[in-house]
Amino acid sequence: MKIALFAGDGIGPEIMAEARRVLDALDLPGLVLFEGDVGGAAWRAHGHPLPPETLEMARAADAVLFGAVGDPECDSLERRLRPEQAILGLRRELDLFANLRPATMFEGLEDLSALRPEIARTIDLLIVRELNGDVYFGEKGTRTLPDGRRQGHDLMSYAEDEVRRIAHVAFRAAQGRKGRLTSVDKANVLETSQLWRDVVIDVAAGYPDVALTHLYVDNAAMQLVRDPGQFDVMVTGNLFGDILSDQASMCVGSIGLLASAALGAGRTRFGTRGLYEPIHGSAPDIAGRGIANPMAMILSLAMLLRHSLGREADARRIERAVARALADGVKAADLGGSADTRAIGDAVLARL
Amino acid sequence: MKIALFAGDGIGPEIMAEARRVLDALDLPGLVLFEGDVGGAAWRAHGHPLPPETLEMARAADAVLFGAVGDPECDSLERRLRPEQAILGLRRELDLFANLRPATMFEGLEDLSALRPEIARTIDLLIVRELNGDVYFGEKGTRTLPDGRRQGHDLMSYAEDEVRRIAHVAFRAAQGRKGRLTSVDKANVLETSQLWRDVVIDVAAGYPDVALTHLYVDNAAMQLVRDPGQFDVMVTGNLFGDILSDQASMCVGSIGLLASAALGAGRTRFGTRGLYEPIHGSAPDIAGRGIANPMAMILSLAMLLRHSLGREADARRIERAVARALADGVKAADLGGSADTRAIGDAVLARL
Ligand SMILES: CC(C)[C@H](C(=O)O)[C@@H](O)C(=O)O
Ligand SMILES: CC(C)[C@H](C(=O)O)[C@@H](O)C(=O)O
Repeated sequence: MKIALFAGDGIGPEIMAEARRVLDALDLPGLVLFEGDVGGAAWRAHGHPLPPETLEMARAADAVLFGAVGDPECDSLERRLRPEQAILGLRRELDLFANLRPATMFEGLEDLSALRPEIARTIDLLIVRELNGDVYFGEKGTRTLPDGRRQGHDLMSYAEDEVRRIAHVAFRAAQGRKGRLTSVDKANVLETSQLWRDVVIDVAAGYPDVALTHLYVDNAAMQLVRDPGQFDVMVTGNLFGDILSDQASMCVGSIGLLASAALGAGRTRFGTRGLYEPIHGSAPDIAGRGIANPMAMILSLAMLLRHSLGREADARRIERAVARALADGVKAADLGGSADTRAIGDAVLARL
Repeated sequence: MKIALFAGDGIGPEIMAEARRVLDALDLPGLVLFEGDVGGAAWRAHGHPLPPETLEMARAADAVLFGAVGDPECDSLERRLRPEQAILGLRRELDLFANLRPATMFEGLEDLSALRPEIARTIDLLIVRELNGDVYFGEKGTRTLPDGRRQGHDLMSYAEDEVRRIAHVAFRAAQGRKGRLTSVDKANVLETSQLWRDVVIDVAAGYPDVALTHLYVDNAAMQLVRDPGQFDVMVTGNLFGDILSDQASMCVGSIGLLASAALGAGRTRFGTRGLYEPIHGSAPDIAGRGIANPMAMILSLAMLLRHSLGREADARRIERAVARALADGVKAADLGGSADTRAIGDAVLARL
């Protein structure tokens, strides 16, 4: 089994080092690791945020463990050279269309949420975000209109097969959870959303055990504040998913603990090909100081073991070790504690 | 001065009746009122959610006071006949491009918010949402691709003059408040957003007294949960504004109290032409029972007096009367009280 490790920018290398130690400690047989450059770091070294050798490495791998990209010094580069293009490029080139973003309250951490503890406590949801279509990848550009005005444009679109495959992922996820699925769209305004809704309803026929509801995206954003505990699985397009999943993560209050998976249609010997990353970013403000929280990165490794390597038991071992470390008060600054990156890695390793 | 009253669907007529009583009580000289049908009610009576006679009435008016549209029985109609088309049609036909949506905590109501009281208490922001462009009004449709798949599509776009005029509205609003403006976009992915950002930066040169910052929309959705008190004025496009303004309203916790204005470039004798509506919807579940909260509708009338009729003193009188009624414990069911629609109207009138 081949795993590509892309640490990226900012705190990426620091947190990746701890995930790597956890992976090494599992001592999995027949594992081959590669390291590649992505993001601003890759642009500095090779002139491109996703150099061909990195992309090749990703293609050859069963799974990619991804740190973070984003570098303020690259903000003024033209778009195709900016760090974010690394993650967008990997999603598209590997056809990683299904983004799984669980948002779950960690016991004892309710006070970190801006929501009232009795509401925060109820959060246990999974956002399934389509990751390869929508206005992200449609035709886009800036043109000069006949009357001389400049106009920016981006085409939003979904084809029925793109909706169908993400809907199947979401319905299956709901079957494995509480059996409730909320599809989020803006079908009262957008044709893309109307097609989305029609296809989701169509796919629902094959999952009579899942209760499907539909919400407009503005209402979904309200409900996620008012009563996030009402949701089990939510499925939505790339743009709405970007917004709602970040909102949901922040409702939990500890984004330093939230992992994500981006899965494709491709299979590995024991699971699905995918890319795994913490949902927090590169945090340039604290980079290089050894104080970043590596837990979301380590939990992303757990997701990798589960979905791509079929190693559920190892995934659980890691998740339990992290939960125990938290219960024992091992917390980074983002959780109000003072443990540094390395100490947290040590604490998780000690509890494996 | 001419005011058009469009009550619409669901609780619309009930809450409009109370706003009407408040308006009558002010006994303004030379005021002419018209009533028109919109939404599902208009579709039933005339076969269209925005009949020509309603549109004509709106064109002839200095201001429109709008209740709510939305009717579950119309959900299966083709899009152009659905109730929402009334409000979308009015915005577009009257070129009402600037949506002002203030979200402010009402004293003593912090406990209604899902946010912790000490966070909820800090909310005092104004969202300025562009209302006439973006993916709402771009070319849209469903087509069959050469390979037989159906595809839904909607074109997102902004031209520089569209961004410029809403930016001016937002900068001026910030000047009249705390002097801080946050522009929200997704410039790391969308060309429309990049143009948006470039133009906002350009307009900023004329407002050296306003501190401008930029946020990506996913980050904005997070920050609105984490620390909404950091925002003064936020300006954004139609789609992001739809989502974020509803999210912000729900952070306040009492959407039954939140009013909004949709302003155009047209002038009245004393102000700006505009449409005013509560941000809550038609609430079909409680319609006809006389228990809806008319306060947001009454506060929308206050905004109308301020922006379209130049009657700041009357606007304040109404706002103070509503605040006093609340302080005296006059609350509808949505605020945990038991006052009915009519009793709330009475209470506000008694405190005018
Ligand atoms: C960095 C950016 C392009 C990306 C996105 O918008 O998808 C990020 O916000 C995410 O959610 O992974
Ligand atoms: C009813 C709908 C078309 C409308 C919108 O999306 O603009 C509503 O959500 C709003 O915010 O006024």
